[in-house]
Amino acid sequence: MDTGNIEIVEMFKGFSITQEDFRTIENKFQHLKLHKGDILLHENDIVYNNYYVLEGCLRAYFIDDSGKEHTLQFAVKDWWISDYTAFFSTGKAIMSIECIVDASLYKISKNDLEHLYLEVPQIETYFRKKLEKAFASFQKRILGNLSQSAKERYTTFIATYPNIEQSIKNYHIASYLGITTESLSRIRKDIALK
Amino acid sequence: MDTGNIEIVEMFKGFSITQEDFRTIENKFQHLKLHKGDILLHENDIVYNNYYVLEGCLRAYFIDDSGKEHTLQFAVKDWWISDYTAFFSTGKAIMSIECIVDASLYKISKNDLEHLYLEVPQIETYFRKKLEKAFASFQKRILGNLSQSAKERYTTFIATYPNIEQSIKNYHIASYLGITTESLSRIRKDIALK
Repeated sequence: MDTGNIEIVEMFKGFSITQEDFRTIENKFQHLKLHKGDILLHENDIVYNNYYVLEGCLRAYFIDDSGKEHTLQFAVKDWWISDYTAFFSTGKAIMSIECIVDASLYKISKNDLEHLYLEVPQIETYFRKKLEKAFASFQKRILGNLSQSAKERYTTFIATYPNIEQSIKNYHIASYLGITTESLSRIRKDIALK
Repeated sequence: MDTGNIEIVEMFKGFSITQEDFRTIENKFQHLKLHKGDILLHENDIVYNNYYVLEGCLRAYFIDDSGKEHTLQFAVKDWWISDYTAFFSTGKAIMSIECIVDASLYKISKNDLEHLYLEVPQIETYFRKKLEKAFASFQKRILGNLSQSAKERYTTFIATYPNIEQSIKNYHIASYLGITTESLSRIRKDIALK
């Protein structure tokens, strides 16, 4: 591992984990660096890993039959990212994940994670809590998609991902909101005028 | 508890739980019966409980500022339902949950659930796995909302909730799909003609 353990200690802060358990945990995480434009996961790859973002930004997207891109998720510092449908079942990815701002990550395999749940039960608690938060935020997003205007969804996006806007392309944001880049420009102008 | 323990044993099948732990679990679950039209949870209620459906059908919905209903989720046999954003944080519900087919449920409070995670760690594993599945299915639904036609979303709905269609109202399905009941009729006719 080419970066220290401080980040792993930081990752699980709030959990009382012994020094020995930390060594067990560390051994299961692998560090990796990505450059802007690198593809971390290709559609149809078997998904073995879950990824924790130390810094940088990644984007999970799906390409539909007509070739149009749809952004499911961005991941910034302290977020996890993977194709979870595929990761939980060790199946094939339906999405791709690309690096959009140079990134530093940890990865852990499903197999190692399952062992870790047994060896260090606090890790299962950590992931159960992370899943609760992620699930609640997806629940909000589905309700937003059903009930909010594009402008309201844009405002929610800005609140969910503060400081991300300047680092990513307009068509990424538009494809996350389910609108065209032209609509995005109109919304921004509209907000700026207020 | 007015129904037996068989359902609780069934709920956690695949987990090796001792007889003693089963008694601990049973004591934390409460059984309740609902009639069609009963409201289990009102918008703005503080959410203390998570609900497991033994039989019947429930619907979680959200009413937007213009008074329009949006259906987030149906819950049938062996599904869990709550306003999870509120449940995980013991906050106020933004949704309501109504019984749409007479139902038999178990409920467990967040407090009891947190104790159970410590007393019987397999329960935390059970919920972590349930959350993984629910999260993956929400991930699919968000992608579907972004990329699929109303007809494709309807087909996915039928696959997700088989045998549910005859028991629920057309406007429930339409408000789940984010379309009008007229569009739903057109889609059904279109499929029937094929």
